[in-house]
Amino acid sequence: MVAEREWDQFHTPENLAKSIVIEAAELLECFQWSPDGDHQRVRSELADVLTYCHLLADKLDLDVDEIVLDKLQETRTKYPVDKARGRSTKHDQL
Amino acid sequence: MVAEREWDQFHTPENLAKSIVIEAAELLECFQWSPDGDHQRVRSELADVLTYCHLLADKLDLDVDEIVLDKLQETRTKYPVDKARGRSTKHDQL
Amino acid sequence: MVAEREWDQFHTPENLAKSIVIEAAELLECFQWSPDGDHQRVRSELADVLTYCHLLADKLDLDVDEIVLDKLQETRTKYPVDKARGRSTKHDQL
Amino acid sequence: MVAEREWDQFHTPENLAKSIVIEAAELLECFQWSPDGDHQRVRSELADVLTYCHLLADKLDLDVDEIVLDKLQETRTKYPVDKARGRSTKHDQL
Repeated sequence: MVAEREWDQFHTPENLAKSIVIEAAELLECFQWSPDGDHQRVRSELADVLTYCHLLADKLDLDVDEIVLDKLQETRTKYPVDKARGRSTKHDQL
Repeated sequence: MVAEREWDQFHTPENLAKSIVIEAAELLECFQWSPDGDHQRVRSELADVLTYCHLLADKLDLDVDEIVLDKLQETRTKYPVDKARGRSTKHDQL
Repeated sequence: MVAEREWDQFHTPENLAKSIVIEAAELLECFQWSPDGDHQRVRSELADVLTYCHLLADKLDLDVDEIVLDKLQETRTKYPVDKARGRSTKHDQL
Repeated sequence: MVAEREWDQFHTPENLAKSIVIEAAELLECFQWSPDGDHQRVRSELADVLTYCHLLADKLDLDVDEIVLDKLQETRTKYPVDKARGRSTKHDQL
């Protein structure tokens, strides 16, 4: 879709990173004044964030599932169950 | 992983939306002063954004692939190839 | 301070706009998992946001107080007291 | 203005911090696909960021000018002229 619209010229990694934070803020806007966001709007804004994440991953030849799994493994190691249970403390302060 | 660490209590949709924008800004930080971000750091920060996106999707019983495909279809319709080619204009100004 | 450190070369409007959102997300991080942010940290992060806002205003020859007052006047007009009282609805939905 | 519209109930520090990042992302949107943002739009979005910063400062009894000056003093100390000149490196890597 990007190719046939010749949008690739705008899709530098830097512009995509800007786009991700812009869409993430629109997602947060669903919760600006209340903890309950409208379901349809949240769905749509989350899809926008994910779409730009996938475009950036493609651009950098990264496999989305692989980097998420790698990070998960890293988090497991940084936050051992016995230390991290029930706490939102950062790993370097555990 | 979230379950065994009893982190679910912190993972309200609102807190996850905050987390997504916080991680997205860390991703942007890779490009704060230059268009070229360090590859390893970009990979790691992008994984963080995606991880929180997946946690929010799970929380709201949304299928990540489905919402991205739906949005893609919507974008195709909003930005017809003949109008949108080579332009970064918003659909309502095309 | 910026001048004597020769940082002006990095301070394009675009880079400053990126910096503002990056610092704003660090401010939000004070409230990531709880509505109560640590006072000293909030103070410090808010100062960072404001500093980059002032740098951008200077760059664009804007007077910070003037643009805030103008916006205030605009908001007063867009949200008449009788319609907006006690509501967080957006002006175009009032 | 906030008082007469009874908006104070929505203006918790947390909600204001969310609002700051949301407005900061709208400011960044002026530069999403190009380093040159439209002047009027940048002016308006910057005013929004500053307005919410001031509301948060008021809420926390902080003096905007004081915290900016304190931070400036801190930055001068963290980034000595002879080390930081012409570099965008973070202080802990100087």
